[in-house]
Amino acid sequence: MQKYNNMSLIAIILIFTVLACINMPSYEVKISQEKKISEKTKTCLGCHERYTPGIVADWKASRHANIVPAEALKKPKLERRVSSKKAAKYRTVVGCFECHGLNPEKHSDTFDHFGFKIHIVVSPNDCRECHELEVEQYSESKKAYAYDNLKKNPVYSMMYRAIISLKSVDLDSLRVEQKNVSNSTEAETCFSCHGTKIEVSGYTYVIKDGLRVKVPVLKNWPNHGVGRINPDGSRGACTSCHPRHSFSIEVARKPYTCAQCHLDPDVPAWNVYKESKHGNIYFSKEKYWNFKSVPWVLGRDIKTPTCATCHASLLVDESGNIVAERTHDFGSRLWIRLFGLTYAHPQPKHGATYKIMVFDKTLNKNISLPTGLKMEISDKYLITEEEMERRANAMKRICKTCHATEYVDRHFERMHKTIKETNKMTLEATKLLLKAYELGIADPSNMFDEYIEQLWVQQWLFYATTTRYASAMTGAPDYQTFKLGWWEMTKNLEKMKFVIEASLKNSSSLTK
Amino acid sequence: MQKYNNMSLIAIILIFTVLACINMPSYEVKISQEKKISEKTKTCLGCHERYTPGIVADWKASRHANIVPAEALKKPKLERRVSSKKAAKYRTVVGCFECHGLNPEKHSDTFDHFGFKIHIVVSPNDCRECHELEVEQYSESKKAYAYDNLKKNPVYSMMYRAIISLKSVDLDSLRVEQKNVSNSTEAETCFSCHGTKIEVSGYTYVIKDGLRVKVPVLKNWPNHGVGRINPDGSRGACTSCHPRHSFSIEVARKPYTCAQCHLDPDVPAWNVYKESKHGNIYFSKEKYWNFKSVPWVLGRDIKTPTCATCHASLLVDESGNIVAERTHDFGSRLWIRLFGLTYAHPQPKHGATYKIMVFDKTLNKNISLPTGLKMEISDKYLITEEEMERRANAMKRICKTCHATEYVDRHFERMHKTIKETNKMTLEATKLLLKAYELGIADPSNMFDEYIEQLWVQQWLFYATTTRYASAMTGAPDYQTFKLGWWEMTKNLEKMKFVIEASLKNSSSLTK
Amino acid sequence: MQKYNNMSLIAIILIFTVLACINMPSYEVKISQEKKISEKTKTCLGCHERYTPGIVADWKASRHANIVPAEALKKPKLERRVSSKKAAKYRTVVGCFECHGLNPEKHSDTFDHFGFKIHIVVSPNDCRECHELEVEQYSESKKAYAYDNLKKNPVYSMMYRAIISLKSVDLDSLRVEQKNVSNSTEAETCFSCHGTKIEVSGYTYVIKDGLRVKVPVLKNWPNHGVGRINPDGSRGACTSCHPRHSFSIEVARKPYTCAQCHLDPDVPAWNVYKESKHGNIYFSKEKYWNFKSVPWVLGRDIKTPTCATCHASLLVDESGNIVAERTHDFGSRLWIRLFGLTYAHPQPKHGATYKIMVFDKTLNKNISLPTGLKMEISDKYLITEEEMERRANAMKRICKTCHATEYVDRHFERMHKTIKETNKMTLEATKLLLKAYELGIADPSNMFDEYIEQLWVQQWLFYATTTRYASAMTGAPDYQTFKLGWWEMTKNLEKMKFVIEASLKNSSSLTK
Repeated sequence: MQKYNNMSLIAIILIFTVLACINMPSYEVKISQEKKISEKTKTCLGCHERYTPGIVADWKASRHANIVPAEALKKPKLERRVSSKKAAKYRTVVGCFECHGLNPEKHSDTFDHFGFKIHIVVSPNDCRECHELEVEQYSESKKAYAYDNLKKNPVYSMMYRAIISLKSVDLDSLRVEQKNVSNSTEAETCFSCHGTKIEVSGYTYVIKDGLRVKVPVLKNWPNHGVGRINPDGSRGACTSCHPRHSFSIEVARKPYTCAQCHLDPDVPAWNVYKESKHGNIYFSKEKYWNFKSVPWVLGRDIKTPTCATCHASLLVDESGNIVAERTHDFGSRLWIRLFGLTYAHPQPKHGATYKIMVFDKTLNKNISLPTGLKMEISDKYLITEEEMERRANAMKRICKTCHATEYVDRHFERMHKTIKETNKMTLEATKLLLKAYELGIADPSNMFDEYIEQLWVQQWLFYATTTRYASAMTGAPDYQTFKLGWWEMTKNLEKMKFVIEASLKNSSSLTK
Repeated sequence: MQKYNNMSLIAIILIFTVLACINMPSYEVKISQEKKISEKTKTCLGCHERYTPGIVADWKASRHANIVPAEALKKPKLERRVSSKKAAKYRTVVGCFECHGLNPEKHSDTFDHFGFKIHIVVSPNDCRECHELEVEQYSESKKAYAYDNLKKNPVYSMMYRAIISLKSVDLDSLRVEQKNVSNSTEAETCFSCHGTKIEVSGYTYVIKDGLRVKVPVLKNWPNHGVGRINPDGSRGACTSCHPRHSFSIEVARKPYTCAQCHLDPDVPAWNVYKESKHGNIYFSKEKYWNFKSVPWVLGRDIKTPTCATCHASLLVDESGNIVAERTHDFGSRLWIRLFGLTYAHPQPKHGATYKIMVFDKTLNKNISLPTGLKMEISDKYLITEEEMERRANAMKRICKTCHATEYVDRHFERMHKTIKETNKMTLEATKLLLKAYELGIADPSNMFDEYIEQLWVQQWLFYATTTRYASAMTGAPDYQTFKLGWWEMTKNLEKMKFVIEASLKNSSSLTK
Repeated sequence: MQKYNNMSLIAIILIFTVLACINMPSYEVKISQEKKISEKTKTCLGCHERYTPGIVADWKASRHANIVPAEALKKPKLERRVSSKKAAKYRTVVGCFECHGLNPEKHSDTFDHFGFKIHIVVSPNDCRECHELEVEQYSESKKAYAYDNLKKNPVYSMMYRAIISLKSVDLDSLRVEQKNVSNSTEAETCFSCHGTKIEVSGYTYVIKDGLRVKVPVLKNWPNHGVGRINPDGSRGACTSCHPRHSFSIEVARKPYTCAQCHLDPDVPAWNVYKESKHGNIYFSKEKYWNFKSVPWVLGRDIKTPTCATCHASLLVDESGNIVAERTHDFGSRLWIRLFGLTYAHPQPKHGATYKIMVFDKTLNKNISLPTGLKMEISDKYLITEEEMERRANAMKRICKTCHATEYVDRHFERMHKTIKETNKMTLEATKLLLKAYELGIADPSNMFDEYIEQLWVQQWLFYATTTRYASAMTGAPDYQTFKLGWWEMTKNLEKMKFVIEASLKNSSSLTK
């Protein structure tokens, strides 16, 4: 009898095990620590489970809903995800009120909501309550200043306005005139990634089951761009990469996140990654890897890097040696700015790049760019050669966890040559543009609004930049050759020549 | 002994469990209900398991092979996937003969096959046997009329023929002349998505193991485009989205399906989705989600939408409230036609859009389009403002399951502004084109076959449409800015100006 | 008591099973056969586990680290992955030294490393030790000759040099002059995919923990292009598709691998695959499939093909019938070269395509291409019509495992028509180019370096080729219509016409 019972037992368990493993959607399930939800958050949930059930479901599966900051603070240093001593005072899980009820006096979007003072836009200054170091690091980065870097820089402003303004054609001269730039288009284009400025423009009522609920109307909302100016004056949106309301580290570590903004033709990191060997192996094997563990262990958790690996994450090897410390200043591991402005140049010292200036010998004045038309490099605002070398070595340290020394050094040696060559190819296009101005074919008062100028822009903004990204990020040969690289840089010079020559004959044909 | 046996038992089970979960490819396995396969289908399988084993393997893993319609009909309403009372008569699983043997008298591709009258192309009228409501809904949609909407509309016909016809260059005038449009090219290009007209053109013999099998030869086959004209006269192909022979709901719900046709540069839904936050989170987390459950539960089964979520599926929230009813009329939840023809406009009342006409003030006649050259809007064929508002609210209801009311309303407010702005940018290109006609540079008798006209087409078909798609589908800033959006709309106006000016000087150089 | 213990047992096991299956990252774990690692490899690991831990972690999870070649050779033929009798002498797993220590006398990159003679670049001639048949097959393929096919062919050399050379603009004539082609740019562009020539250029010291290690400096390294010339003189890199150090068959079989090089705009296999129904189903369902089993069973392991399925792998059906034998000569299952040079043409007999010549009637001489300007087809170097038919039938055999005969035959019939039509569309562009030469607008001594010539190149290299790829690989309608297909082929002819006409007026304006 005993034997029979044990045999049945084994049979039942085996069958169940097999069935359980086959085709079972592996839900992200965590045991919600119901008893540790604060009373205030329970009040929120009472309505919001009904009115915004998707938000609540997202939150419930999040780490926030399943951890108590005071306990999180006690984890060993390498495993710790909170960095503020203030976290110690939180003895409930991180729920609705814990974030939306923070710093009410600082938020212009604070409003009374059923007796609670809450705000809509949770900002980095709120997240700082537990994640102080991350916010500190981020706050000086180019991302944090992404709004100002467009708005406060006269050159970039002139360019983006030339692109996204409404246009009106004068049918006599055929001149294309710029009209207004709307908030809505700013918010959907440049400032979608760069971040908008969120302001309270009034109040309205939302009706739910006959109940009138007064809420603020926010201007330039929704937005979660990296340089968002929040209603409490702080900069940035942690939710650019850690989206609401799961705030998942897995999402932040996977390349799709960065792919939302770092996309071709101007910032083709994602496209280059997809074509690289790193990307190939990632896509083939990522289902076996671990994107949640902290610290992130190279070789054990992942076999090839994603964006976050090289650019942000805390990394250790299987022996526990720290390969790289975590950073939320995404530029801090970079030594060259591959993104041409107009040329590739050393990284800036500080994220407020709108302040950078260079003396341009052609225009004979200081301009708000890090490089001049003839490749002059700004001298005060960019990192030194020593700092460049220090950062390059820090980056190489990550590469050398998986690759031999020569492999890594030869790779970056090629990259440096490509940077020089692409800058040279940009210079040739610049020479053609200056010739066009000299011949009276175009008007230099705005360098972005005429066809010959737009071809020049594509040379450095799309083609030279893409070529450098492909070179740096370990191989995207088709991007670098045909798609947006050398083929286009070469053809573009011929095209500019053609346009100049054709325009010379045009200049007498229509009134200007 | 007892203790030892139990300990061994635990050890064995634990080891097995761990091994079973590690690295086990989770095959889609269903217990094939061998005893419920009809005799006729068993006959088919007898040969086809050998001659088309891939088809049989696909079918065996499908729901069709594992469910009996009569039982399927008994499921609770929200779980039910069949909608015809006729389903009640089927007491075997849905096998080869159940579909291929339906309605033989209606199918021109019916043929005798070893004593059975079967046909090749299973049509929506066949699927109607169990899925009546879905076929009803689909049959009035734009997808069902996709074939007619190209073929029977003189404007669209003129356009597609200008694109896919063979060309011949006259070497004296350099004029590019249109030659014939082949069936094969139609079938691989426009009509691959829109659907071809399948007709029996004869018979042939297939030799298998020395056996001669007579089968029909089908013209314009293979094809599973959305508006396919089937050999039984019905329209559409359910297999556009529910591919043979698994007919999987998971495939239909995932965005790759829609990505087959809704792709850049003209219908960039997929590209926009990939760049959005929805897409980002989908790609990062979809392995944890459930794409098979009916009903589909927002928050539990999925945390962000795919195409099907917003555009088709039956959705409930975790409390069981219906958020949206299922529809196979994919336009029915849409209120604006973002796809420019030439301008964005209200959705049509009915799927047969080839009938839509508008009085064009520039051409001074009725034309077969919903909008005229100067943005005239057709008055009779498009939905009313009340219907637009009803549909907008239905769509917003889906969004509001996860998002706050203001978040959703501000988003769509921006979208409406973008629709206006992009229509305006199209108008400017139209003005340039009309100027080109006025200057005698191009010939308006065909508005699609000359270079200046093709630049104009790109303005509304590619760039303005992409800008609107990016705006609507929650954010694809690079697409909307640089890739195919404002940068291209702006540059294109300058390019048209350049081409017009250069052409003015050309007009005397070669005979026309 | 007994009953209580059994119940607890069941409860514990059930809970554990459920927890184990939920959300458990399924690490690729293999039981490393520690006792079967050779002494020499153990020595390597002693340092390298510390200095290149990522490499060691990758290797440990590989098949190489977990199988003994002598045992692998004993597997049933269909399961066998080694093909050399030499494998029988290996009674340890395949570790560092087993590969890096092979054939030291043949490798110019052999160096003394702590008493061992090892080399850096493991070549196909090394892999041949166990994988003789694969290396044999590969060594005669186009891939193996990819380096020579660019370098030794004067036409292709002229073209790639026109693209990737640095340029310099003469500001008087506006002529864009070609300057040098750098090794670094070659290595990152064309030769990244085609393969570079790896040579030892010297020696250097790597410092690790104060220890100086002398290593070779390799020129044109890193690289794993398909036609790489290795330091032992052999051609190719198995790691193009089986990347270090996992050498995973799963990676090789998934389409991301091929996507690294076979990418739009010139070789858009990946892009076409993504848009096809095969790709759609792959992306939706691949998590259920098996990419590791050998042999690969159609219908059981995969439901739709990936690149490797149709182009390389050993395939059987569920009854064990061989559908296709494995091949590492990737061209051997192809009968048409869809890639235009200038036109589509029959596949070459042998991989050294740089040798192919055709008599060009327009240029009145033999040129190093398989097709002449007016579609002359080379007669000696390409496969016969009989061979074309044999290969087509072999490919169709794979298709017919899942598809009906008529379905497959009608598909390829369309493809053959498209090949004719796209060749015709290329011919029209060629006629326009020849007219441009006749009118003195361009200089034919280099057919790749002027704007009108570059437009012509795009016609056959990008647009006609893409149209053919889309046609062949089962459907990418948007690619074939709007993205890089008929829209572009058509518009390009109009654009060439415009450029010729505008250039006629330009010819007197600037000194040439």
